Amino acid sequence: MADGAVPKQDRSRATRRHLLETAIRCLANHGWETSTVGFIAAEAGISRGAVQHHFRTREALILAALEHMFAERAALLDALPDPGGSGPERVHAVVTGLVDAIGGELFRAALQVWTVAAAEPELRSAVVPLERHFARGVHHRAVRLLGVDDTDPAVRALIQATLDLARGLALADVLTDDSRRRAGVVRAWSNQLAAALPAADPAEAGADRR
Amino acid sequence: MADGAVPKQDRSRATRRHLLETAIRCLANHGWETSTVGFIAAEAGISRGAVQHHFRTREALILAALEHMFAERAALLDALPDPGGSGPERVHAVVTGLVDAIGGELFRAALQVWTVAAAEPELRSAVVPLERHFARGVHHRAVRLLGVDDTDPAVRALIQATLDLARGLALADVLTDDSRRRAGVVRAWSNQLAAALPAADPAEAGADRR
Repeated sequence: MADGAVPKQDRSRATRRHLLETAIRCLANHGWETSTVGFIAAEAGISRGAVQHHFRTREALILAALEHMFAERAALLDALPDPGGSGPERVHAVVTGLVDAIGGELFRAALQVWTVAAAEPELRSAVVPLERHFARGVHHRAVRLLGVDDTDPAVRALIQATLDLARGLALADVLTDDSRRRAGVVRAWSNQLAAALPAADPAEAGADRR
Repeated sequence: MADGAVPKQDRSRATRRHLLETAIRCLANHGWETSTVGFIAAEAGISRGAVQHHFRTREALILAALEHMFAERAALLDALPDPGGSGPERVHAVVTGLVDAIGGELFRAALQVWTVAAAEPELRSAVVPLERHFARGVHHRAVRLLGVDDTDPAVRALIQATLDLARGLALADVLTDDSRRRAGVVRAWSNQLAAALPAADPAEAGADRR
């Protein structure tokens, strides 16, 4: 389709998405200090004025970028094909999906924001609800993918531990490539989790997919 | 003992320790950007010139502070009384000690450094060996405290997972007080770990303490 045939609204949506994705990439690769509105606009190939028309401050742009990417990751988890099987292999596939969803570029970008927010109460009060919303969404999806009942406090704590582990693994990958070691840790924990959880019921998990 | 009676060498060692501890507190509470050599010197009540005589750059001061604090934490783990008992209660006591040693103010300070190092290759290459040395030391102490044999790859991966979990929990505590939730996660994890590890032998762990 020629560019002229794309409705204006779609073009502006695509531009917004491109800008927000660029913001995340800039944060992850160049850090907070470098990632000014001007820098991100330049990297995105959009005029600084156009960006500032929508986002008056770096904080506003970056919070919108985090919100957008958190939503994308949640959608990615929703789109995961049912891992199939049961027992340890199923649990391993789900844990691997969760670790992937929590880690990577988005984590590295979010880490930059958390670190600045740790010393800036105003940014912190904006970031905490975003982060909490994302964490709740991931927890909810983990429960569904595993086909378990997290009204059982023991099950709930094990799912939380799995997500805390995923964040610890994401952190270990920030300064060096930790993928090989991570694979072994994910395997060891998945075996434990599979042994600890009441047998996952793939049929029920499947019925609850949407 | 009156101040005049303290040998000069001890005084200077005490001043150094005070400076390094202040650097960690500044980083944890005010973040990297604020924690310049001048700011840290002022917070420590030491002249900027005196600090710069020993540490020419912020990076040098902060790396020395991390190294000092990592050594302190390792010593703290060495000084932990034998938790006593066996089975889940023993494992729970050890995991709690590890989570405490990895988290808190030192973690918040280190996080500031990691985050900047993520985008600065020179700082990264100085931080990675420090961090790796600390992580190895904590792993080694975990193995000893639990009285397990980590030449068994399955045991080794579970100890690693426990330390990754501890880092994830430390991260979850940076923006909000997560202590209540953390206690439940540590309990659930410890139960799993106790079930998975070959029965810890307190006598052997005790004999291997030094």
